[in-house]
Amino acid sequence: MTRNIQEIVAQMTLEEKAGLCSGLDFWHLKGVERLGVPSIMVTDGPHGLRKQQTGADHLGIFDSVPATCFPSAAGLACSWDEELIGKVGVALGEECQAEDVAVLLGPGVNIKRSPLCGRNFEYFSEDPYLSSEMAAGHINGVQSQGVGTSLKHFAVNNQEHRRMSTDAVVDERTLREIYLASFEGAVKKAQPWTVMCSYNQVNGAFASENVKLLTDILKDEWGHEGFVVSDWGAVNERDLSLAAGMELEMPASNGVGEKKVLDAISNGTLTEEALDRAVTRLLRIIFKSVDEKVKDATYDKNAHHQLARTVASESMVLLKNKGGLLPLAKNSRIAIIGAFAEKPRFQGGGSSHIVPTKLDQPVDEIKSLVSDASAVVYAQGYHAGDDAIDEALIEEAKRAASEAEVAVIFAGLPDRYESEGYDREHLNLPENQNKLIEAVASVQSRVVVVLLNGSAVLLPWLDQVDAVLEGYLGGQAVGGAVADLLFGEVNPSGKLAETFPLKLSDNPSFLNFPGEGDRVEYKEGIFVGYRYYDKKEIDVLFPFGYGLSYTTFAYSDLKLSAASIKDTDEVEVTVNVTNTGSVAGKEVVQLYVKDVASTVIRPEKELKGFKKVALAPGETKTVSFVLNKRSFAYYNVDIKDWHVESGEFAILVGHSSQEIVLEATLAVESTVKLKKHYSQNTTLGDLYNNEEATAILQPYMKKFQENSPLGGVDEDDAHAEMMVKMMQYMPLRNLMAFGGDGFTKDMLDQLIKELNSL
Amino acid sequence: MTRNIQEIVAQMTLEEKAGLCSGLDFWHLKGVERLGVPSIMVTDGPHGLRKQQTGADHLGIFDSVPATCFPSAAGLACSWDEELIGKVGVALGEECQAEDVAVLLGPGVNIKRSPLCGRNFEYFSEDPYLSSEMAAGHINGVQSQGVGTSLKHFAVNNQEHRRMSTDAVVDERTLREIYLASFEGAVKKAQPWTVMCSYNQVNGAFASENVKLLTDILKDEWGHEGFVVSDWGAVNERDLSLAAGMELEMPASNGVGEKKVLDAISNGTLTEEALDRAVTRLLRIIFKSVDEKVKDATYDKNAHHQLARTVASESMVLLKNKGGLLPLAKNSRIAIIGAFAEKPRFQGGGSSHIVPTKLDQPVDEIKSLVSDASAVVYAQGYHAGDDAIDEALIEEAKRAASEAEVAVIFAGLPDRYESEGYDREHLNLPENQNKLIEAVASVQSRVVVVLLNGSAVLLPWLDQVDAVLEGYLGGQAVGGAVADLLFGEVNPSGKLAETFPLKLSDNPSFLNFPGEGDRVEYKEGIFVGYRYYDKKEIDVLFPFGYGLSYTTFAYSDLKLSAASIKDTDEVEVTVNVTNTGSVAGKEVVQLYVKDVASTVIRPEKELKGFKKVALAPGETKTVSFVLNKRSFAYYNVDIKDWHVESGEFAILVGHSSQEIVLEATLAVESTVKLKKHYSQNTTLGDLYNNEEATAILQPYMKKFQENSPLGGVDEDDAHAEMMVKMMQYMPLRNLMAFGGDGFTKDMLDQLIKELNSL
Repeated sequence: MTRNIQEIVAQMTLEEKAGLCSGLDFWHLKGVERLGVPSIMVTDGPHGLRKQQTGADHLGIFDSVPATCFPSAAGLACSWDEELIGKVGVALGEECQAEDVAVLLGPGVNIKRSPLCGRNFEYFSEDPYLSSEMAAGHINGVQSQGVGTSLKHFAVNNQEHRRMSTDAVVDERTLREIYLASFEGAVKKAQPWTVMCSYNQVNGAFASENVKLLTDILKDEWGHEGFVVSDWGAVNERDLSLAAGMELEMPASNGVGEKKVLDAISNGTLTEEALDRAVTRLLRIIFKSVDEKVKDATYDKNAHHQLARTVASESMVLLKNKGGLLPLAKNSRIAIIGAFAEKPRFQGGGSSHIVPTKLDQPVDEIKSLVSDASAVVYAQGYHAGDDAIDEALIEEAKRAASEAEVAVIFAGLPDRYESEGYDREHLNLPENQNKLIEAVASVQSRVVVVLLNGSAVLLPWLDQVDAVLEGYLGGQAVGGAVADLLFGEVNPSGKLAETFPLKLSDNPSFLNFPGEGDRVEYKEGIFVGYRYYDKKEIDVLFPFGYGLSYTTFAYSDLKLSAASIKDTDEVEVTVNVTNTGSVAGKEVVQLYVKDVASTVIRPEKELKGFKKVALAPGETKTVSFVLNKRSFAYYNVDIKDWHVESGEFAILVGHSSQEIVLEATLAVESTVKLKKHYSQNTTLGDLYNNEEATAILQPYMKKFQENSPLGGVDEDDAHAEMMVKMMQYMPLRNLMAFGGDGFTKDMLDQLIKELNSL
Repeated sequence: MTRNIQEIVAQMTLEEKAGLCSGLDFWHLKGVERLGVPSIMVTDGPHGLRKQQTGADHLGIFDSVPATCFPSAAGLACSWDEELIGKVGVALGEECQAEDVAVLLGPGVNIKRSPLCGRNFEYFSEDPYLSSEMAAGHINGVQSQGVGTSLKHFAVNNQEHRRMSTDAVVDERTLREIYLASFEGAVKKAQPWTVMCSYNQVNGAFASENVKLLTDILKDEWGHEGFVVSDWGAVNERDLSLAAGMELEMPASNGVGEKKVLDAISNGTLTEEALDRAVTRLLRIIFKSVDEKVKDATYDKNAHHQLARTVASESMVLLKNKGGLLPLAKNSRIAIIGAFAEKPRFQGGGSSHIVPTKLDQPVDEIKSLVSDASAVVYAQGYHAGDDAIDEALIEEAKRAASEAEVAVIFAGLPDRYESEGYDREHLNLPENQNKLIEAVASVQSRVVVVLLNGSAVLLPWLDQVDAVLEGYLGGQAVGGAVADLLFGEVNPSGKLAETFPLKLSDNPSFLNFPGEGDRVEYKEGIFVGYRYYDKKEIDVLFPFGYGLSYTTFAYSDLKLSAASIKDTDEVEVTVNVTNTGSVAGKEVVQLYVKDVASTVIRPEKELKGFKKVALAPGETKTVSFVLNKRSFAYYNVDIKDWHVESGEFAILVGHSSQEIVLEATLAVESTVKLKKHYSQNTTLGDLYNNEEATAILQPYMKKFQENSPLGGVDEDDAHAEMMVKMMQYMPLRNLMAFGGDGFTKDMLDQLIKELNSL
């Protein structure tokens, strides 16, 4: 339906316009009945719908209508499959339509700066490229159903500790290359209807009042067309936030927000044009929702459950499989151990906490797959509710394990260990689980550990078990997905979207997490996740991009469409992937780029492409990637733009960030000439690096050498290297100081003038 | 002699005054003959006198008159003995008097941020307390002889790469606690006649023009009474540097500096008062030098050489001594291997490079100590001039080693590896030396490696040899000192003043060294040296404070004079140390302080005291330390002062930073109340941490809970922890947003007002 939004805005009173910019209640926007503007509903997500009917909160406390619970983002990202995540998005969109929800509040793309962040289970990755690709898949899926999303939490909200007041201090380059890049790709590829600003401050200004983030970057640079909504309670001063580009305050503020806006307009500190712009953006989305509303929508609960199972099995990561213990034979005598086998942890706490339409228990699903269910025994092993060691449960588990052919232990983090609202304090599993696993391993040599947790953990018993399957928070079909993988109904294909460190103190943010008072400095800069572990040569437990399969893959024939390009060109990279094993499987081909030599500090390599490919045994497929300027660029803070330094780049293709198997070299030439400014503090070495400058310098140097007390040094003597370096680092002004009286101030000024005319 | 300096200044012309602020030539200040102001000479140091007679340079290129070469600062610091360094200072002062030198240019107290810094051999330590104590010993020694020193390079000059132009970007707390602290202690304890400003920029301003460093901190806060001299060629704009508190430009600038100053005064951009203040400071030191001049001074070359030998033997560090291989029996058949045994590296390159009065060769000194010199054979092993492996030399060394009872290999860094003017690129010894050591170790199980180098190196063959003696750059008596230690004439007592890492990338500055272009960011902050390795739990090759002896020491009876003190009090710490071995020896008792719990990020522990004590076998002595406010304080950037947070501090006493053997606890109470400012962004948790604030908050919270949709949550349910944390992190403003309409803006304002009246 076509509508003249400008006209509607013109017909609205100042009060109606200001009112529209603050919520009606906890979950609804205001409407303007007389003008046909409906009150639409927004609802928490992002991996399931949390529509509350009675009571309202933003913390997942009160129950909501049942909805399909898909794996949370930490797991989804391990699928490295944006199409699959797109299908989840489509399903979520259908459920929103059925429940009359206009906007689903997600996905979250905050970077996993520290594994301690309590909300990491809701975020995709430590890598901004992977994160933004996954988010784009999610957004495109949901929005294809006429339901909006809210890309959150914008921005630099990487901890729960003091999240509502802390100031994240990040340098511009890090902001651009890491923390904003995760949002940028998603905004540009998928245009989320809304973006949710975070609670925290960024470089001294609340995200909700951050002109640079909300207007300069999000709207002006990236071209975001929708509106920005505050995280629930993130508004500090409503007038300032509106001026900064934050269109919608949520939840309702009992008139305080509206009054602030109206006062500011009457004071002249806020223009009515700014309010109109905000209202226009709001109305555009509200009517988009109206226009795309599906009448009497329903969805197929069973089909969504089945999708949840598929997605979970594609997301889980096989971390260890010594001697090919997995997949298990269906006629094995199996001891299933651990409270999570009967009551799995399948989602995180907080605003994303939903009521699932059903919940598969691992024990039941395993029993349903084996040839003789009576050969499967269950032992609880530990209490999930506390960390106390129950020796009786452990003894029972040991008995069960010793009498079975294989023990499958379900372990992981209980709800109280990770949630929205607070961070973890360590990376350990509960003591009673670690104790249990060691005890079981002492009586049974064939032990499989299935982990259900939202973020990286330490595995002190890793050497004592043969197989480990990382299930993350697998959603309501977690039980079936685990069973499918254990018995090879599905071949594991997940790859870690985050590094598992050997110890907490190895983490790059360790010295500065979670900050002092209301200030957290991101001093590790761009060295987040594998960028840090790579560069610092720190051994890790499992690297970024890592994951095993029941088959094996080989790469060959890495080819580039060109050996050299300009930074304005694209280059195609192709590689052949072969399933060299005996079962079908999927491989995630990963492409990293390394700047071979750079004048700026850069990571050893950065992920710039990936493709998930399914291969029958013996089958070969050619996988193709297209790289462009951004694949080679760093953010240059001087020119305030992405910049490629001319030179060679290594194109690295491999199974994980640490298992690179093929490499090619590409020359990229910059089309942007960085203007140099010469001054008396320009060094001689910098001039000698430039032919034109050297030509100008030559006659002056001759004069210098004739007069300098340093001129007479024999270049072959023991001090030659020091002399060369000394001269290289010497600023032009020292041609005077060390040039005797033959080098005057006028000569220096003339030299600088000539250089600046280049 | 009393003199009215004010009067002399008053009699000087503007030109004479401006002239006095720039050197006469490379090594002399100007004089004003008509007023009896002499032209005094300054000369490079700091561990030997470099007085040039013909030719002049600041890079150690042209020869100078012979002088005693003592171990350089990197070695001296390992003595942990300020009295001994004081004796070196006295000797240097005597030599300056004999050569008519008024000021010796040193010592250098720059912190060893990276082991790559080419000039680390001239600096003391990675720890500011140790560094400043050693420097104070040096300064007090020299100045006791009526000769001035120049504490250098002020400040934050921790690399040679682009040293004349780069900008060191350091946060205020790091500047104070690490980089400036090293100067602060030395200035306050020893009042160096002069301080030399460094070439680089610090936080955007050249050190030579840095008002904050030169005037606010050095003169006003620390009370430095002498003058500041530029490093040779460090002046950028002479008028700005004079205004900033840099009194003397060196070397002569051919009138450019004077002209700038005169122009600035005539323009009114510089006041004559500022110039007068500078001249007054210069004259005070010039006349001090005149007054303390010793007529016809001479010195005892042999006595100084013997002192150099003693000091070197007290500074060298025994890193490994498996099975007590050392000391060697004097009747052993010994193979001495390595070119450094015949031509040792004993000093570094650059401005500190001097011509020694004599030079002891290790081979000769060893032969002079053994019972039968013919049982000692020498094999060259490698060429020091390049890294190429000479198989013939290696074969010869293997033969010599296999025929001997023990092999002593002299290895280390050649001159070209480390020098003023450029940094190292890696931590390796030359390839031909590593190869040689492995080859020798393959034929001889008893191998001793003696290292001669200026900074930490990697020892890839460490497991293959039994003993390693780190000799640093041992000065002209290096040969005798090594011989004394090898045969137990002297018992090793040196302790490392820097960490030896396992690999370069472990170093805290690795990601940001040496910076990008002319900018180097100190992002590791206060975590320099052991402060970093401790906190990050990174294994090291040898820790800070480490060093072996031929005897053993035990600690007992750690006592504090009080269990709790105010931060204005001092506390005395005593501990008994016993020589539990069978030979006399010296132990360095180290005291570290750890803040048990802190709201600011602090190191695991920091060195706050040390004492070197000599003990006969079986002897026990009580060692005493006095700790004061500074021992417990961090630099608080808000109040711009050192601050102690009330609470418990652990007093740790041990053999090294990683071998703490006794621990006591002290409660320190702050006498400074930090004023809190309350705003709508103060969190509830911050109020609940304060009894008075909680009392004010109580009635407001009651109102909030009555109205909030969150008020009805059962605290025992699964979300309780999240709720508690959520409330803790909630800013006061959210009492409105989440408080229903029962919590008004007026109530919020009233609450904040009441809090701020506290």
